[in-house]
Amino acid sequence: MVVKVYGPHCASTKRVLVCLIEKEVEFEVVPVNVLNDEHKDPQYLKLQPFGTVPVIQDGDYTLYESRAIMRYYAEKYRSQGVELLGKTIEEKGLIEQWLEVEANSYHPHAYNLAIHVLFPALAASKTSDPKVIEESEAKLGKVLDIYEERLSNSKYLAGDFFSLADISHLPFTDYIVNNMGKEYLIKDRKHVSAWWDDISSRSSWKKVLELYKFSF
Amino acid sequence: MVVKVYGPHCASTKRVLVCLIEKEVEFEVVPVNVLNDEHKDPQYLKLQPFGTVPVIQDGDYTLYESRAIMRYYAEKYRSQGVELLGKTIEEKGLIEQWLEVEANSYHPHAYNLAIHVLFPALAASKTSDPKVIEESEAKLGKVLDIYEERLSNSKYLAGDFFSLADISHLPFTDYIVNNMGKEYLIKDRKHVSAWWDDISSRSSWKKVLELYKFSF
Repeated sequence: MVVKVYGPHCASTKRVLVCLIEKEVEFEVVPVNVLNDEHKDPQYLKLQPFGTVPVIQDGDYTLYESRAIMRYYAEKYRSQGVELLGKTIEEKGLIEQWLEVEANSYHPHAYNLAIHVLFPALAASKTSDPKVIEESEAKLGKVLDIYEERLSNSKYLAGDFFSLADISHLPFTDYIVNNMGKEYLIKDRKHVSAWWDDISSRSSWKKVLELYKFSF
Repeated sequence: MVVKVYGPHCASTKRVLVCLIEKEVEFEVVPVNVLNDEHKDPQYLKLQPFGTVPVIQDGDYTLYESRAIMRYYAEKYRSQGVELLGKTIEEKGLIEQWLEVEANSYHPHAYNLAIHVLFPALAASKTSDPKVIEESEAKLGKVLDIYEERLSNSKYLAGDFFSLADISHLPFTDYIVNNMGKEYLIKDRKHVSAWWDDISSRSSWKKVLELYKFSF
């Protein structure tokens, strides 16, 4: 059964696509143009009532929320492709911890930067707010200082193994490094920079970037 | 080994405590007074560098982020106490989906209401902002409309079984119903109301409320 992935050009969907490639799961994509409000279309809302991307369909199974979809496939195909959930339950606990840190401490500031630097048309005010940019950058910097300390002790976020926790950072960190002109947030921190060079050079991520160009 | 849980009086910690009780895991609590900034104390920051509660210590294993801790114990003690991760991998996927919905769509608005209605001293402006209250309530209402539809088709969020997804909603929904005077957000929606009556009447939740009184 080929997995259908809706909204491949959106940042959060790219998490799912990388995971599927790492797990060697076959998929096909269904474009959803969020700039044309296709994610608010009644047909789409039947699949994803909150009107966000991504959502997947796998036979008659439908699932949304990018981090939930990643967890589902990483577990369903545990013995196939790259192991993304660690080897022990304690390693998996740390992966969950860093997935939550990404969602709760990293993403909100990176998202605000994306909205106000790259996509002001999507901001509540419909314009770029310099105060939000300044505050988000300062807060993200503090978070990255903690990452720097962590990554001076382990190669990846959850330990010395690549995992879902690292994948989850790819789309918005790519915006920061390659689209916002704020690459210094990453490059000025030695261990964060080495970690970024490592995870962003994976063939799965390169393939996703190549196939589904820069878009929100 | 008794699990040490830091910050039992805080809302997010209560998720963890309910989970431990449901899984019949022995624990002891270590108070962290956030109003006295004890979560910013250097000793505490060694355990939890982001300076938030909760964090647990289980022998030499340390873990933070409430939803990550819940997942860890629900899986570690899968065959002990109440099953909180469903029976199949598809059920588990839906639990993950609704855990993410709670974190990304429910919690931010419920949190803003708590901060501005109950704890204005913790708001950025240090005062209650009526505009934030109005907007958060409106957004939470729209989210709850989707919950109402979902809960008209299944008894609990992820299906006809109690799970981590339901537990995750307990602390902030309790604030809404019992401390903010906004119980109509829940009570005016028939299926959400029945779901709330069900999950909030569990002995695990009653015990947590009784032992660790209302506090932020």
